Amino acid sequence: MDKAPNEIETLITQLARLPGLGPRSARRAVLHLIQRRDMALRPLLAALERVAQSAQTCACCGNISNLPLCEICCDPKRATGEICVVEDVADLWAMERGAVFKGRYHVLGGTLSALDAVGPEDLRIPDLMARVQAEGVREVILALGATVDGQTTAHYIADALSGLGLAVTALAQGVPMGGELDYLDDGTIGAALRARKAF
Amino acid sequence: MDKAPNEIETLITQLARLPGLGPRSARRAVLHLIQRRDMALRPLLAALERVAQSAQTCACCGNISNLPLCEICCDPKRATGEICVVEDVADLWAMERGAVFKGRYHVLGGTLSALDAVGPEDLRIPDLMARVQAEGVREVILALGATVDGQTTAHYIADALSGLGLAVTALAQGVPMGGELDYLDDGTIGAALRARKAF
Repeated sequence: MDKAPNEIETLITQLARLPGLGPRSARRAVLHLIQRRDMALRPLLAALERVAQSAQTCACCGNISNLPLCEICCDPKRATGEICVVEDVADLWAMERGAVFKGRYHVLGGTLSALDAVGPEDLRIPDLMARVQAEGVREVILALGATVDGQTTAHYIADALSGLGLAVTALAQGVPMGGELDYLDDGTIGAALRARKAF
Repeated sequence: MDKAPNEIETLITQLARLPGLGPRSARRAVLHLIQRRDMALRPLLAALERVAQSAQTCACCGNISNLPLCEICCDPKRATGEICVVEDVADLWAMERGAVFKGRYHVLGGTLSALDAVGPEDLRIPDLMARVQAEGVREVILALGATVDGQTTAHYIADALSGLGLAVTALAQGVPMGGELDYLDDGTIGAALRARKAF
């Protein structure tokens, strides 16, 4: 139990529900905010208000944006005929930080999961099929996690896209940058060996 | 660099400045908030607004409260003639969670520190001296950290209070609840041995 005043306790409870924060770090964060009212509390409040007002899901790709269509979908330079399929918005941001992909995205909103009863119609897979045909897509890049559910979803989408005459590719698997072989799991080493390239 | 839209990037930057959060956990938290607008974002926004409007420092003890005088200073049952001196509000909350102390508090706002050039007048030590005389205090309990700066501060306050005819005590040092001797540092074991009690 916190012994802070009610309003402050409510704020601690709300903050403690965020992923990565618990009651103890939420208390520290709230004290930090209150003791730095002008430098921390007011800017955070203003930023949160703006996001609450403006953030919305892009009607086309499922990205989060301030506009009905996100900046990537609005950018004509990114109409490269390539769509990169990702599980969620965090993965889209991660791809954008990589700064290699120049096409557009499609956010599924999760992966197929028999355990959690997530089927194709619970994800944005029908939307993807519609986009592929409407936008004249040449290549679909499956950037899904190397997990059982991620790979199940990748296979399902590849099957659904087969026969449409477009390339379906997936991210390469192998040794990560800066990775030491000694610390890698056997599956990754095996995959990297099978996918070896001329040096 | 984040590739999120500007408003969202600003919010991530603000959240990442909180103690215990970094850019990665701030991104996760912001996505969590946006994807749960009604369940998480709006309640957090409302809680933050209320705290921004109402939180203030208690004019008497330095606690954080919604009132000019905090709930503890306003409670006549807590006028026990005991004042517990703590470094900061987090320590006051920790004492209150302990639920043993029934008197009032005095928050110093830090510790004396030669390195950081923090002197007695930078803390609320003059206020403490004034309170002790005005409120007819019988006992001052020094609940300061067992650090060099904490103990320096405790000695300074004990010196300043000497000759006023009141008891000056400090928290006991010893084995913490659930603590195993094997994992305790030598200083704690020595202190616990010197302070041993009849069983």
